[in-house]
Amino acid sequence: MRVVVPVSGSDPKTRLSPVLSPDERREFTEAMLADVLRALDAAGHDPEVVSTAPIDCDAPVTVDDRGLDALVNDLLSAGPLTVVMADLPLVTAETVERLFAPDADVVLAPGLGGGTNAFVCRHPDFRVDYHGASIRDHRRIAAETGADLAEVDSRLLATDIDEPADLAEVLLHGDGAAGEWLADAGFELAFDGGRVGVERE
Amino acid sequence: MRVVVPVSGSDPKTRLSPVLSPDERREFTEAMLADVLRALDAAGHDPEVVSTAPIDCDAPVTVDDRGLDALVNDLLSAGPLTVVMADLPLVTAETVERLFAPDADVVLAPGLGGGTNAFVCRHPDFRVDYHGASIRDHRRIAAETGADLAEVDSRLLATDIDEPADLAEVLLHGDGAAGEWLADAGFELAFDGGRVGVERE
Repeated sequence: MRVVVPVSGSDPKTRLSPVLSPDERREFTEAMLADVLRALDAAGHDPEVVSTAPIDCDAPVTVDDRGLDALVNDLLSAGPLTVVMADLPLVTAETVERLFAPDADVVLAPGLGGGTNAFVCRHPDFRVDYHGASIRDHRRIAAETGADLAEVDSRLLATDIDEPADLAEVLLHGDGAAGEWLADAGFELAFDGGRVGVERE
Repeated sequence: MRVVVPVSGSDPKTRLSPVLSPDERREFTEAMLADVLRALDAAGHDPEVVSTAPIDCDAPVTVDDRGLDALVNDLLSAGPLTVVMADLPLVTAETVERLFAPDADVVLAPGLGGGTNAFVCRHPDFRVDYHGASIRDHRRIAAETGADLAEVDSRLLATDIDEPADLAEVLLHGDGAAGEWLADAGFELAFDGGRVGVERE
């Protein structure tokens, strides 16, 4: 099974701009990618990275600047495929094993806010559409193609890091490269009575 | 094993005040509680509710207006205990089974933002402290008491509904009383390019 990690290598994680400079966003993106690749490696897979621009990581990189839908659908037309997003630094080898465990044509890992953070596809006709609440579209597309569907109930796969508030999850639970990068950059947890946030020294 | 669902029955879910009136917050709280109780029932448990004020639900209710720590620690001193929060409307019977599956003294289900959304305790000395990033305190307390610890990696258990943005998760994934209540109240998904949010008609 081909395992692909798509990543935006050019101007990544723009929604983190309020707290990270462009260079920092790039470094942090590479740290998160390193955590994802390490988890996939540890679970016995050989991930490939497809990036919109050259990026530093411990896996073969193909540069492809097409949009995510065109890229992934092209890969899907070539055979069974697993896609895991690059901004899931909490993912562990055990989480990866849970993603591969269901014996279903299509396995979806929902993200917070309606995204699809990872999938396994063993059906020739399944295609992706990442716009809007993609998890609902992917459930619908799986049903329309007659693929039997499973979903993985995983907080670690659901937690994509897009916005400043998400950084708290990395500090709370991540013990990999991304957590280390944030700590080195001076981020720490902040408590204001509701959910835990972050502040920077 | 005693299974307790604590709930704030007096002025619940104040962080939803920007989008719900006091009466609506109470109704929505009861809908979420109904979903949690249904999941526990379906998994073969007999949940009890402990509320700070009388509340309408399909389980025995004890009114107790102590703070959460005092209440839960009193229950813990009496023997094995499971606590599941009342604001987890995505929880299913299968999720509940995953919470009970690990053969550990203490099983924790982390919430988004550092909370502890559910736990199973089979150790006489474990106690709770829900202030701040409670998941970290609970990991520490378990270690200090010599309890062996497991964590459940579940998005459905992690998704507590506290803030307006959280309502999107209920509309995206919930097919129970809470999702129905929100739809009846005119909430629907809204797309603005990032994560999916909600809007009200």
